[in-house]
Amino acid sequence: MPAPNRSTRDALGGEQVEGRRAVLELLRAGRRPVRSIVMSSSARDDPALDEIRELAGGVLKMVSPERIDALARSDVPQGVIATAAPLRPVDLDELLQAPAAFVVALDGVSDPRNLGAVARAAETAGATGLILPRHRSARITPVVAKAAAGAIEHLPIALAGGIPAALDRARRAGCWTIGLDAGADDRSLFDLELADQSLVLVLGSEGRGLARLTSARCDVLVSIPMRGAIASLNVAAAAALACHEIARRRAAMRS
Amino acid sequence: MPAPNRSTRDALGGEQVEGRRAVLELLRAGRRPVRSIVMSSSARDDPALDEIRELAGGVLKMVSPERIDALARSDVPQGVIATAAPLRPVDLDELLQAPAAFVVALDGVSDPRNLGAVARAAETAGATGLILPRHRSARITPVVAKAAAGAIEHLPIALAGGIPAALDRARRAGCWTIGLDAGADDRSLFDLELADQSLVLVLGSEGRGLARLTSARCDVLVSIPMRGAIASLNVAAAAALACHEIARRRAAMRS
Repeated sequence: MPAPNRSTRDALGGEQVEGRRAVLELLRAGRRPVRSIVMSSSARDDPALDEIRELAGGVLKMVSPERIDALARSDVPQGVIATAAPLRPVDLDELLQAPAAFVVALDGVSDPRNLGAVARAAETAGATGLILPRHRSARITPVVAKAAAGAIEHLPIALAGGIPAALDRARRAGCWTIGLDAGADDRSLFDLELADQSLVLVLGSEGRGLARLTSARCDVLVSIPMRGAIASLNVAAAAALACHEIARRRAAMRS
Repeated sequence: MPAPNRSTRDALGGEQVEGRRAVLELLRAGRRPVRSIVMSSSARDDPALDEIRELAGGVLKMVSPERIDALARSDVPQGVIATAAPLRPVDLDELLQAPAAFVVALDGVSDPRNLGAVARAAETAGATGLILPRHRSARITPVVAKAAAGAIEHLPIALAGGIPAALDRARRAGCWTIGLDAGADDRSLFDLELADQSLVLVLGSEGRGLARLTSARCDVLVSIPMRGAIASLNVAAAAALACHEIARRRAAMRS
């Protein structure tokens, strides 16, 4: 059997996009060809659907709500589903060498809602890219795209053979590598002083956190102070905190 | 037909708890009688399951993985399901009158994973309670309990007839009421100076944000600065940011 060619191997998915925000951002970004948009004839009007109708042009087709349900692969498609050309990964080194790089690397985050929510949190904080491991992480399924609420249309995504090797490349490109680790009791996220440098923020899997090889390659490990009885945050919440803390520090340093 | 009695009307749910962290915290907290715990005979050992076995005593029963799947009402029960006495709501005014109250009020958050994730974010930030509207919000279903990862065992929950009325009571109890609102462009969450006071943080629904009546009753509205192309965060991510920002300010003021 022949080896898969490069375009197959590096397919990121993302062909089916469901939900109002996700479809709207697909159209707004205009970065990949949109093949079809189906909208439920019973969907209540709202500003997002109005704008989707305006931007969609000839690819829009009104269908029955039953047809939407039959096509949907996420829980709540909100009456609209698009199909588009797949997302294409960007070059890892280009991502790392960009000025003021603010890149989020995911080491083994497999829950699709979490993966989408991390992309959304990163994009809203002004992150400049996302690194996913080529083999282990979730791809951009319809559930990921829905949870990302359009972030995948704007946030460049690179694939890496492995996160530890990608961190070596990040360091060579002049990025600080910062691991978020619940066990890093000695340093708080809120004392991080590197935020204005080029950096890669590394987040681990939902259950086990950062892999040992990954945390060993980080320049610094930080944790989010836990002030209640339970000891851990969901990875998407942790990503939102870390990304927006970096954004806050960058904004404060600029002003 | 007679009106439902108070205990029925105020049932919070929470009787079925699935997932390792959620079941472990049910046992650790020890605040409500645990009726049964079933564990899959094929579950791989891990420290959480070991501690569940230790704490469970006579109510533990090993069952087949098929039995777990048949009982599960969340996606990923992780091989363990408990049943317990329902969660009981606490008195709203007691919650509001507590010294240094740090209460989160949810106005119309209906997605169960989001509700659970908000509880988890609030608990890890040291929040002292949660307010849910008696009629409109999601109850503590197994999906909520799973996403909360044990937070519902530690975080007191009060029910309110409506959030606007609850905010009036909060003000009378001496709490500041702070609404998180994407439209509050004039004031950033990160410039909030009230964090060390008794306060209620109000979060709106996933789609529409704060209801008009709710935002009108808030002393101050703050927003999270958006620094990318997409304009909004998931409510659980927003809750994590707001709760941990309040926690960070409180800690800084104490030190």
